[in-house]
Amino acid sequence: MPDKRLLLLSNSTNLGEGYLEYPQKTIQQFLGNSVKNVLFIPYAGVGLSYNQYTQKVASSFAQIGYQVRGIHAFPNPVEAVLTADAIVIGGGNTFALLNQLYLNKLINPIRKVVANGIPFLGWSAGSNVASPTIKTTNDMPIVEPPSFEALNLVPFQINPHYTESRLPNHGGESRVDRLNEFIELNPGINVVAIPEGDILKIVDNSVKHIGTGPIKVFRRGQKIIEFDPSDNLDFLMD
Amino acid sequence: MPDKRLLLLSNSTNLGEGYLEYPQKTIQQFLGNSVKNVLFIPYAGVGLSYNQYTQKVASSFAQIGYQVRGIHAFPNPVEAVLTADAIVIGGGNTFALLNQLYLNKLINPIRKVVANGIPFLGWSAGSNVASPTIKTTNDMPIVEPPSFEALNLVPFQINPHYTESRLPNHGGESRVDRLNEFIELNPGINVVAIPEGDILKIVDNSVKHIGTGPIKVFRRGQKIIEFDPSDNLDFLMD
Repeated sequence: MPDKRLLLLSNSTNLGEGYLEYPQKTIQQFLGNSVKNVLFIPYAGVGLSYNQYTQKVASSFAQIGYQVRGIHAFPNPVEAVLTADAIVIGGGNTFALLNQLYLNKLINPIRKVVANGIPFLGWSAGSNVASPTIKTTNDMPIVEPPSFEALNLVPFQINPHYTESRLPNHGGESRVDRLNEFIELNPGINVVAIPEGDILKIVDNSVKHIGTGPIKVFRRGQKIIEFDPSDNLDFLMD
Repeated sequence: MPDKRLLLLSNSTNLGEGYLEYPQKTIQQFLGNSVKNVLFIPYAGVGLSYNQYTQKVASSFAQIGYQVRGIHAFPNPVEAVLTADAIVIGGGNTFALLNQLYLNKLINPIRKVVANGIPFLGWSAGSNVASPTIKTTNDMPIVEPPSFEALNLVPFQINPHYTESRLPNHGGESRVDRLNEFIELNPGINVVAIPEGDILKIVDNSVKHIGTGPIKVFRRGQKIIEFDPSDNLDFLMD
């Protein structure tokens, strides 16, 4: 059995930088030389067309030598997944994304190819759907998907765009409040909160943290634990 | 047919003020002298018990002469709704709240008593569920309710805790981005964005805006419109 390979990014772009600039080298190292054709899933995009979104991503991937094709351009999306060299899911709205994954019957095909060693790359909503459910997304539920159950490629919940800053003069819940509410109702699962600019790279059962910020792990019944990039995170795959 | 009467608050408490302080007089004017026993629905509370939440609300309502009882203290929650003098739904997590409303089979009973003129008061998540759906909540989807369809007491979507400020040095979506994504996928419905400290009072088909901040109305195909408290908002009930 080939190794499962995932690259899960908190975000596409750091504030003030070019689109997909900060992770570019990491993406190239992750995909390597054998991948030629990358399948891009633009379903999280709302307010721009799937074509526009795919072109934006294709321009960035072209700089590191990969051809990108959007799944919406294939007559048969399931076959597109089953024949892809790599699967890339972009950010946007997590509910819209998961809804389209269900409508196009892609949940099981994606699980299958990832289990067979096809590299999976996601950012923001694309990282959220790699989790067992979308219950730790930051997005507004603008569309109702058939279920909150997601791709379940990793056994923990991801919270992308993690921040501890709060809106000035505002009484609404902070991110920490929200994740504490999640673990209160969902015992027995780790939530991995990844700040912008940081990445998890998973090969088989090894988890590497690429970036500079600490990531934090929330779990019911324990204190929030902070991990630096040098810390071992393999326990997350248990 | 008696008038439908709703008081929909953006939030319970302004930053730095006492609990339920800013709306206290408005609540008293709304409930009036004939209401004695207020039924409180604490289902949005996560991380505090229903008892704790109810006691907190009861202390505040006692100051203006109302007795509050939590719905969880009744052997039959449906009967509690059908015999209440007024229904009050507090804030917290909208998904947890709606889930419990379904589990306890309260959607239709609440609709029925509100249609019969029983006053309805909600804040934050409690205002969200007065909308046709919970698709404009700001909350994290920590629990999966059977449906996003909500009480549908008003024909528009509410976005409580509305703000246009952004987190410093953060690339995630702003509230305006999120509501624009909602209207993109949900044409034909108004979203009423209510800043903290502001209230909508609805009597039959008249809508009054109590507060100082402008409220904004988002709708697909039109510019965001800003309304001051003196503007007529009755069109929202069309």
